[in-house]
Amino acid sequence: MTLRIAMIGHGFMGAAHSQGWRVAPRFFDLPEAVEMAVVVGRNADAVAAAAEKWGWAESATDWREVITREDIDIVDIVTPGDSHAEIAIAALEAGKHVLVEKPLANTVEEAEAMADAAARAAERGVRSMVGFTYRRVPAATLARDLVAAGRIGEIRQVRASYRQDWLRDAEGPMTWRLDKERAGSGALGDIGAHAIDLSEYITGLRLASVSGVVDTIVAERPLLADGVGLSGTASTERGIVTVDDVALVSGRYAAAEGAYAPLGSFEATRFATGRKNALRVEVSGSLGAVAFDLERLNELSFYDATLPANEQGFRTIYVTEHDHPYLAPWWPAGHMLGYEHGFSHQAVDLVTAIADGTQPEPSFADGLHVQRVLDAVERSSAAGSAWISTD
Amino acid sequence: MTLRIAMIGHGFMGAAHSQGWRVAPRFFDLPEAVEMAVVVGRNADAVAAAAEKWGWAESATDWREVITREDIDIVDIVTPGDSHAEIAIAALEAGKHVLVEKPLANTVEEAEAMADAAARAAERGVRSMVGFTYRRVPAATLARDLVAAGRIGEIRQVRASYRQDWLRDAEGPMTWRLDKERAGSGALGDIGAHAIDLSEYITGLRLASVSGVVDTIVAERPLLADGVGLSGTASTERGIVTVDDVALVSGRYAAAEGAYAPLGSFEATRFATGRKNALRVEVSGSLGAVAFDLERLNELSFYDATLPANEQGFRTIYVTEHDHPYLAPWWPAGHMLGYEHGFSHQAVDLVTAIADGTQPEPSFADGLHVQRVLDAVERSSAAGSAWISTD
Amino acid sequence: MTLRIAMIGHGFMGAAHSQGWRVAPRFFDLPEAVEMAVVVGRNADAVAAAAEKWGWAESATDWREVITREDIDIVDIVTPGDSHAEIAIAALEAGKHVLVEKPLANTVEEAEAMADAAARAAERGVRSMVGFTYRRVPAATLARDLVAAGRIGEIRQVRASYRQDWLRDAEGPMTWRLDKERAGSGALGDIGAHAIDLSEYITGLRLASVSGVVDTIVAERPLLADGVGLSGTASTERGIVTVDDVALVSGRYAAAEGAYAPLGSFEATRFATGRKNALRVEVSGSLGAVAFDLERLNELSFYDATLPANEQGFRTIYVTEHDHPYLAPWWPAGHMLGYEHGFSHQAVDLVTAIADGTQPEPSFADGLHVQRVLDAVERSSAAGSAWISTD
Amino acid sequence: MTLRIAMIGHGFMGAAHSQGWRVAPRFFDLPEAVEMAVVVGRNADAVAAAAEKWGWAESATDWREVITREDIDIVDIVTPGDSHAEIAIAALEAGKHVLVEKPLANTVEEAEAMADAAARAAERGVRSMVGFTYRRVPAATLARDLVAAGRIGEIRQVRASYRQDWLRDAEGPMTWRLDKERAGSGALGDIGAHAIDLSEYITGLRLASVSGVVDTIVAERPLLADGVGLSGTASTERGIVTVDDVALVSGRYAAAEGAYAPLGSFEATRFATGRKNALRVEVSGSLGAVAFDLERLNELSFYDATLPANEQGFRTIYVTEHDHPYLAPWWPAGHMLGYEHGFSHQAVDLVTAIADGTQPEPSFADGLHVQRVLDAVERSSAAGSAWISTD
Repeated sequence: MTLRIAMIGHGFMGAAHSQGWRVAPRFFDLPEAVEMAVVVGRNADAVAAAAEKWGWAESATDWREVITREDIDIVDIVTPGDSHAEIAIAALEAGKHVLVEKPLANTVEEAEAMADAAARAAERGVRSMVGFTYRRVPAATLARDLVAAGRIGEIRQVRASYRQDWLRDAEGPMTWRLDKERAGSGALGDIGAHAIDLSEYITGLRLASVSGVVDTIVAERPLLADGVGLSGTASTERGIVTVDDVALVSGRYAAAEGAYAPLGSFEATRFATGRKNALRVEVSGSLGAVAFDLERLNELSFYDATLPANEQGFRTIYVTEHDHPYLAPWWPAGHMLGYEHGFSHQAVDLVTAIADGTQPEPSFADGLHVQRVLDAVERSSAAGSAWISTD
Repeated sequence: MTLRIAMIGHGFMGAAHSQGWRVAPRFFDLPEAVEMAVVVGRNADAVAAAAEKWGWAESATDWREVITREDIDIVDIVTPGDSHAEIAIAALEAGKHVLVEKPLANTVEEAEAMADAAARAAERGVRSMVGFTYRRVPAATLARDLVAAGRIGEIRQVRASYRQDWLRDAEGPMTWRLDKERAGSGALGDIGAHAIDLSEYITGLRLASVSGVVDTIVAERPLLADGVGLSGTASTERGIVTVDDVALVSGRYAAAEGAYAPLGSFEATRFATGRKNALRVEVSGSLGAVAFDLERLNELSFYDATLPANEQGFRTIYVTEHDHPYLAPWWPAGHMLGYEHGFSHQAVDLVTAIADGTQPEPSFADGLHVQRVLDAVERSSAAGSAWISTD
Repeated sequence: MTLRIAMIGHGFMGAAHSQGWRVAPRFFDLPEAVEMAVVVGRNADAVAAAAEKWGWAESATDWREVITREDIDIVDIVTPGDSHAEIAIAALEAGKHVLVEKPLANTVEEAEAMADAAARAAERGVRSMVGFTYRRVPAATLARDLVAAGRIGEIRQVRASYRQDWLRDAEGPMTWRLDKERAGSGALGDIGAHAIDLSEYITGLRLASVSGVVDTIVAERPLLADGVGLSGTASTERGIVTVDDVALVSGRYAAAEGAYAPLGSFEATRFATGRKNALRVEVSGSLGAVAFDLERLNELSFYDATLPANEQGFRTIYVTEHDHPYLAPWWPAGHMLGYEHGFSHQAVDLVTAIADGTQPEPSFADGLHVQRVLDAVERSSAAGSAWISTD
Repeated sequence: MTLRIAMIGHGFMGAAHSQGWRVAPRFFDLPEAVEMAVVVGRNADAVAAAAEKWGWAESATDWREVITREDIDIVDIVTPGDSHAEIAIAALEAGKHVLVEKPLANTVEEAEAMADAAARAAERGVRSMVGFTYRRVPAATLARDLVAAGRIGEIRQVRASYRQDWLRDAEGPMTWRLDKERAGSGALGDIGAHAIDLSEYITGLRLASVSGVVDTIVAERPLLADGVGLSGTASTERGIVTVDDVALVSGRYAAAEGAYAPLGSFEATRFATGRKNALRVEVSGSLGAVAFDLERLNELSFYDATLPANEQGFRTIYVTEHDHPYLAPWWPAGHMLGYEHGFSHQAVDLVTAIADGTQPEPSFADGLHVQRVLDAVERSSAAGSAWISTD
C-alpha cells in the first residue's frame, strides 16, 4: 500500500516537512511507501510554485476538499497555529491520519478539542501526532534512552532553555510573529514549548505546576511598510509588540512513584545575543547527568557518576554510530546529520505507527499537555508568579 | 608603614586568605607592606598549628583581645557566618580595618548592624570590605570592564548559576553546613550569594525584586558518629537537613536611567551531577554578550554583535595578557592563574584602598544588599514565589 | 534544458551523490534542471535495487554503452579509484561532462592521462570536476573566503590532519580498503588526500615539496571468510595489510609572490582512538588564524589579531547565516547542516559551471596535483623521508 | 633538618621557582623543612632587589662562592642555558643537590658532562633533577598514570605540539632569545623540548630516531636600541634571527617489549597566531586515548574504548579531586590550580627524593636524552630531514 500525503501550508515548516517526506524512504525501509500527493495553500500561484519547488505532485487551494479526497491518507498540517484545530479535527473526522506541526494549537480550548477528536479517531484506527521534531534528533533520543535505562539514576533537577537572538535589534520591524492575534504567543509558545516538551521527553516526567514570568523587552517596533507580514521594509510608524520576548519559568514535575518530585528551570528568549538556536536540556540524576545542546546536535554530553572518582567527567558522545537511535541507515560514524533529518525520522515513526496500528508519539494529548503548561505560565505571570497547576 | 593583620578563624577560607596575604606582596608593589601577625582560634593547639602551617607569626585564642591590640591594623574574619557581626563590629569600633569573608552575616539584621558600623567607621577613615572574591578573577573583572565600557550595549537579560554536586550521594552524612542553626542557609546563601553578587558586579545593576523557590532534595541523611561537624564517619541514626539544597530564582534588576529593567534568572545547587564549581554568568546586551564560567576561570566568552554579520561568534579570550585586569605582575601570556589568586588580588585592593583613603569594594553595604536579596528569596519561596522587594 | 545524469557505481559514495542530486534542485535555483537518469553497476539485480532505493529512473550494467547515450549529459563516477581513469576518459571523449569522486585515480600516470583528457575536452566545452566535497562545507568555504580577503594576513604556517579510528581493533578483518591492489593507498590516499586538498583550497597555496613517512601499525589481520570484500565475518586465516595505516608529512608550499613559503604539517590516520572523522585544518597568518574541524562542521574558529589586544580570542562562528557561503536557500540561522549537504553544493557548482561555460573547481588538474603530492609522500617515505618535489 | 637553598639566577624562571619554594611547605607536609637562603646574580643591586621581592634571605654575586658554602644544601639553577653546565657540575662536585631548569644545557656535550657529573654525585648520595615542570601539572601526571595503568592499552600513535604566537609581529624586535649564541636554540629548544619530554613522560617510551625540519619564518628584525637584551625599544637597524621559529618533527619511539614502535609527530612554534601557550599531547592506544592541553591545564581528556560503543566519547576530567595526583592538600574539588603550582610540586618531589635517598625524576640523564633528540632534529633538518638516531 502507498500512503498518500496532503500537506496543508507551505512556509518554512512546509519546506522542512517536504524534505522529511522526500528523504525518509531513500534511507529507511518504510513499512509502507509514501507519496507526496498534494500541497494546499490559499494563493493558487504561490502554492503551485511551492508544489514545483518542494516536489508535490499537485497543488490545491481548498483544504476542505483535499482532506476528504479518497486518495489521501495522511494530512500534514504546517499552517500557523490559529488554523490547526479546524483543519486537524476535520481531517480526523474524515478518517485521515494527521500530523500537526507544533504548537498543537494557540489555545488550550482548541487543543482540548483536538485531543478529543484524536481520541475518538484513534478508536477507529486513525492516527495523530504533533511535530515536536527535536525528540527525533538522535542525540536527544539517546539522552532519553540513557535516562530510561537508569544510567543517571533518580532525577534530581532539570534545566531547559531555548535561546535565540533574532530580536536583538530594537529597530527590527514588527512581523506577524510579534502579534498575539496571529502568533498566539511569543518566545514562550514558539520555542519555550520545545524546551518543555523535550525536558519531559528526556526525563519521562510531566510538569505538574509552574511559576513564571514573561516579559516584552522591546515594546514598540517599526511597522512593516506593507502591513504585518513575515518580513519586509520598515515604515516610519511604530506598532506595539503584543507577545512575550522572554519567559522564565520554574516548574515542579510530578514525581515518579516513591521518588522526589524534581524542580525544573526554563528559559525561552529571542534576546540571548549570540545564541542562534540554543535549545539546551541538562538533567542531573543521582548516578549521572545528560546534557544536550541543539547548536551541537550531533553530540550528547553524558556524566557517569558510577565510574571511579578520578576518571569522572562529562563525555562528548558523537551520536553518529550505527547503533545510535535512527543512525543505522545513514552515513559512516563521524559523518554528521543536520537539522532537517529529524523530519525524516518523524516521517519514519509516523508511517511505522500507522502500519503497526499503534499510537505515535507525541500524541495530541501530549501536545495538549504542553499547551496547558504554556497557559499556566501565562496565568502565573499575570498572577505575580504564583504557582499554577498544569491540570 | 607596615599593615599588620590579624586573621580570626582558620578553616578552608583561612588557608585561602593566608595564601592571598603571603603571595600578594611578592608580585604586586603594594603601597604599604603587610605582615601576617596573628591568627586567632578557639583551640590553642589547633590555632598554633595553623599559625605554623599558614605562616602567621603568632597565634591567639581570644579575638576580643587581639582586635584591640595597638599593633594590629587589619582584622580579617574567616569564621562561620554566625559570628561575623559581633567580631566585625567590635573590630571596626576598635578602629581596625576589616575584611569579612562572605556572606556578610547569616541574617539581614546582623548585616544591617554591620553596615551601620562600617558607615560610622568610614567617617573615621576606617575601611571595611566583604570578600566576594570572584569579582577579582581577572576574567570576571574583564567582563565587568567590557560591560562598563558599553561593549555589549544596553543590558537585556542576565543568567547566573552556581552549580556543585557534592551532595549527590543521598547517603553522604550531615555536616554543619546542612544545619540551618550553624550555616544560616544552604546552597542559596553559600553559593547563590556569589551568583547574585557577581551578576550585579558585572552588570553594574542591582536586583530590585525577586521571585524564588528553594527546596531540599534529600531531606534526611545519616548523622555523623561524633555530632554535627565538618566531616567524619556516618552513624546509623539519621538527621533532618534544615537548609536548602537548591534555589531557583527570577529577579528584576533596577533599570539604568531610561533603560529597560532586565530580568535575571538564578540557580544555586549542590545537586548538579558533574558540575564541580560551575559559577556561570551570561549577560545579553543590545550590542553583544559576555559569559563567564569559573570552571574555566582563565577564559572569558565575548560576543560582539557590531562586527560584520558573517564574522560574529562567541570568542574565547584567554585572560592572561599583561594588560588584562590584575595580570601585569604575573606570568607571560598563556600561563594560567588558579583559584587562590583572587585572594591576592583582594589583598592588593584592600591595602590600596587603605593607603589611598578610599572605600574598597564590595562594601558592607554591598554585602547587606546581597543578604537582603537572599532573605527576599526565602520569603518569596515561603510565599508561593510571590515577588518580594529587596529594599 | 535538462541535464541528464548517469552515475557509474553505487556504493556509499553513490548514496551521497544521489542525495546531492536529489536535494540540490529543491533548495537552489539551478540554471538548468537535472534528472537522475541512470545508475550503472556490474550486477544487474544489485544496481536495479540501487536505482529503486536512490531514485534513479533506470539502471544499467554496461557503462560503456551508457556514456555514449545521446540522452546523457553528465557522467558521475563513484566507482573505486582503479577504474576512474578508463571511465572518465571515455566519457570525456564521448563529450559528456564528468564528475569523479576523489581520489582522481590510483596512480599519477592515470591522473595525468585524465587531466590531459580533461584539458582536451575543455576546448570543446566539456566540463570536468573532481569531488573534493569538503571544500563545499560552508565553514570550510568561509575559511577560504576569509583567507582570500586578507583577514589573516600573510600565511605563516598550516596544519592539516584527518583522523579516524575504525582500524583500532587489531582483530578487525581485512577488507578491500586494506589491499593495495584494490585501494591504491591507505589512510594517505583515502583521507590524507582530503587534508592536502583542503589545506590548499583554504590557503590558495600549493605544496611544492614534501617529506613524509607512512607506516602500517597492524600488519596482519584476519581474512574475511568469503574473500576480500567490504565487510563480513572473520576467518581463522590471516592476511597481510598492504596499505598504510598512518602517514605523517611535512610540506613546503610554494610562496605567494614576494612572501615566505610556509611549512605545513599533515597527518592521516585510521588509528586515532576516539576521533571519528576529524578533518582539521588550522592556518596561522600574520594578522589572524582560521581553524576548521569536520567533527563540528557548522562552526569555524577565527582569530583576528588586529582587534584590541585584550579582546582577542578564537571566535566560534556558527556558519549558518543567510549570507554565509551556500547558506541562503537553507534554514534559518542556527539550524545546522550535515555531511551530505556538501554533495548538493557540489551539484550546484557543477551545474552552474556547465551553464555558464566556465571551468568548475577542483579541476582534474587539481586532482592530478593532489595525486602527485601523495605519490611524492610515498616516494619520500621509501627514501628515508627525503624531500621530494611535487612537480 | 632544614634544607637550605641557593638559587642561581633571578629572571622569569627565578620568580616561578621562588614561588614554588615559598608555597610548597604551606600545603604539603615536606619530610624536611626548606629555607630560601640566598639568591645569586651578577648585578649586586639587581639581585638584592630580587632577594627582597622574591623573599630570599640573602643575595650574592659570586655563585662559585655560594655553591661551596657549608650552609647550602640545594643549588637551584635558573640562569640561561649556556651557563648550566659549569654551575651544575661545580655544585654537584661541591656535594650539593642540584635542580636545573630546562633545557639541561645548550649542547649535547655539555649535557653529557652534566649527566656524568650527576652519575658520579649520585654514588655519593647527591641528587640532581632537571626542571621539566609540566610533568607535574596534575592533569599531565594523571595522563601518565592512566597510560601506565594500561587504561589506553598498547600505544599506537603520539602527537605533541607546543604553540605560541609571540613572534607573530614581524616588527617585533630582536631579543637574546633570537640569538643562537645566547639561546642555543629557538622554538625547538625552548618549547619543543617540553613537548618531547612530556610525550615521553606520559607514554613511558623514548624517541629512538627523528626526522625533522626547522625554519626561521621572519629572518630579520629590528635591533633593540640598547643591544640584544630581553626587551626594549626597537632601533632602525635590523639584525638577523639565528634561531628557528618553527620545528616540525616526526619521530619513532623505541617499542615496548614485543610491541609496535609507534610514530610521534611534533610541532614547536612561536607563530601559531592565537595560541598562547598551547602545549598539547594526544596519545592513541588500542583501548583508549588521552589528550592534554596546557591552555586548559586543570582538565584531561580521556577516551575509554572499552565502554559500550554507544556511550563512548572523550571525557573532560576536571583534575581537581583530592585523589588526583598532587591534589590532596589543595582546595576542594572544582577549585582550579594555575601555572605556578607545578613548581611547588617539583619542590615537593625533589625534597622527598632527597629525604628518601632516591633518584628524583626527570634526571640529568633524562635531560641529556632530550638534548640528544633536539640535536638529532637539527642534524636531520640540515640533512634534508634524514632520519637520525637519538643515541
